[in-house]
Amino acid sequence: MTKDSPWFYENFEQSGSAIGFRVTGKLDEVRSAFQLIEIWNTTDWGKLMVIDGAIMLTSRDNFLYHEMMAHPVLFTHTNPKRVVIIGGGDCGTLREVLKHKEVENAVQVDIDEQVTRMSEKYFPELCESNHDPRAELLFDDGIAYMRNIAPESVDVVIVDSTDPVGPAEGLFNEAFYASCARALRSGGILVQQSESPLVHLSLIKAMRHHMAVAGFAHSRTLTFPQPCYPTGWWSCTLARKGGELSGFRERGAYSKTFSTRYYNVETHRAALATPEFMRELGD
Amino acid sequence: MTKDSPWFYENFEQSGSAIGFRVTGKLDEVRSAFQLIEIWNTTDWGKLMVIDGAIMLTSRDNFLYHEMMAHPVLFTHTNPKRVVIIGGGDCGTLREVLKHKEVENAVQVDIDEQVTRMSEKYFPELCESNHDPRAELLFDDGIAYMRNIAPESVDVVIVDSTDPVGPAEGLFNEAFYASCARALRSGGILVQQSESPLVHLSLIKAMRHHMAVAGFAHSRTLTFPQPCYPTGWWSCTLARKGGELSGFRERGAYSKTFSTRYYNVETHRAALATPEFMRELGD
Repeated sequence: MTKDSPWFYENFEQSGSAIGFRVTGKLDEVRSAFQLIEIWNTTDWGKLMVIDGAIMLTSRDNFLYHEMMAHPVLFTHTNPKRVVIIGGGDCGTLREVLKHKEVENAVQVDIDEQVTRMSEKYFPELCESNHDPRAELLFDDGIAYMRNIAPESVDVVIVDSTDPVGPAEGLFNEAFYASCARALRSGGILVQQSESPLVHLSLIKAMRHHMAVAGFAHSRTLTFPQPCYPTGWWSCTLARKGGELSGFRERGAYSKTFSTRYYNVETHRAALATPEFMRELGD
Repeated sequence: MTKDSPWFYENFEQSGSAIGFRVTGKLDEVRSAFQLIEIWNTTDWGKLMVIDGAIMLTSRDNFLYHEMMAHPVLFTHTNPKRVVIIGGGDCGTLREVLKHKEVENAVQVDIDEQVTRMSEKYFPELCESNHDPRAELLFDDGIAYMRNIAPESVDVVIVDSTDPVGPAEGLFNEAFYASCARALRSGGILVQQSESPLVHLSLIKAMRHHMAVAGFAHSRTLTFPQPCYPTGWWSCTLARKGGELSGFRERGAYSKTFSTRYYNVETHRAALATPEFMRELGD
C-alpha cells in the first residue's frame, strides 16, 4: 500500500453517486458466457469482485449483506426446511442459510458458474459450506427453475441478484413473483435484495406492487448498511404467502447457536424500523 | 446533466475507500483563515460543500446527519433548555435543535464564519432558523468557549465537527470532555459525531475512554446511514453526566409536533441497536 496506489471507482449513473476502493492491482479476470468478472486486490478491503463494472462484494463488508439476506427471513419463517437461493453465486448467502440447523435443503441457482468458481478461488471463506450435504449448487436459469419447480415445495426463496438490468431484470416482475408464490408452501416467504431506500424508493414500491398482484398479501422492506453499494445503505424486501410480517422468532434469534458479525435480535428489529421518508411504503 | 459530466471524488486515505458525486461544475470557492471551502453543483444531490477536499454535506442527504445529531440527544434529555453546538457552521443542526419548543437558547460556536456565510448562500434551507430569537451564532474557538463557560449552565452540548484532524483535533480529547462535563448541569448530555463504526471503531473506543476519564459515567454510540461520509454509515456518541443512557422520551418523540424525514421513535430505537461486531463497546 502506498499513497500512489490507484483507485477503482464505480460511477452509478442512475444515482449520480460513486463508490471507490484503493487497489493494488487486478488479480484475475474472466469473461463468462454472461458477463465480465474481475477480481481486484484492495489495500484495506481485502478482495473486490466486480461484474460488468459493478461492485459485487469485498472481503471486508460482505458480511452485512449476506447476513441480512439470510437471517431475518429465516427467523421470520416459523420452520424453514427447504430454501432456494436465486443468484447468490458467490455462495455467501448459502453459507449463512446453512448455519440454521432446521434447514434440510438449500438449492442455489445461479446462471453463471464462473461467479462461483471465482468465489471459490478468491473468497474461499464464503464457499466453506458448499460441500455441506444439505447444499445443492445448480448453474441454471433461476427464472425457469422457479417456473418449473413443484408447487408448494419450498419454505423460503431468497433472490440474491444483481441490479434489475441485464440478466437479473426478469427477477423483478409479476411473472417471476407468481412463480415464487406458487412454489412456496403456505406461510412461506420470498426475500429479495431491493437496492437503496434513498435512491430506489420507486423501484421498491413497484416491486411491492408486483408482489401484491402476484398473490403475496403482505410485504415489508428492511434496511441495513452496506458500504460497497450505492449510498452505502441497502434494503431487502420480504413477501409472505398467507401470513403477516410484523414480527419474527425473537427467542430463536436470541439463542442462536452460530456466530454473526452484524445480525442479532437488535439489528433485526432495527432493520424493521421505517424512517419517515419511507412511510409511503405503508410499513 | 449529461453522460459526460465529470465526477468529484473524495479518497479517504485512512479507510482506503472513496465517495463521489457527479457534478456539473464548481459554483464558488473561498479560502478562509482556517480552510478552503468549495461549493459544487451536482446532477442528483443538489449542492455539495467540500472543506479542504473533504465532503461535508449535500443538499439531498444532510437531513440524516442533522436529524440524528439533534433529536436523539434532545429526546434523551429530560428537559433540554440550554443547548451549545460546537462546530455546526452550516447551521443544519441548529435548525433541528430549534424545532424543540422546550429549548430556550441555542448557541452555535463555529471557528469559521465563512462556513456559515457559504451555507446561507447555497444551503438557505439549513439556515432558516438562524434568526430565531433563541439562536445565537458565535464565530469563535469552541474549545476555549467550553473552557470558559459558566459551570453547570448547559443541558446539552452537541459537537458537530469535522474529522479529528486539523482544527477539530482538540475536540476529541480528555481536556475538552472535562470542559463539557463541567459546563453541563446534572443529567446533562454531550453528543459528538463519532465517524464510521465500520472503520473507526478504535477511535470510538478511545473517545469513550476519554469521556469516562473526564467524568461521564455512561456513554453510548448510535448509528445511522449517511451516504456522503466514508462507508455511508455513521455514528454519534452520547455521554451523560450523572445518569443512564438506556432509554429516551419515547412518548415525546412519538407525539413530536415538527416534521422530520428520517428521525422517529422507530429510527431512534434502531440507532440504539448494537451490531455483533460493536459489542466490544459494551453497549
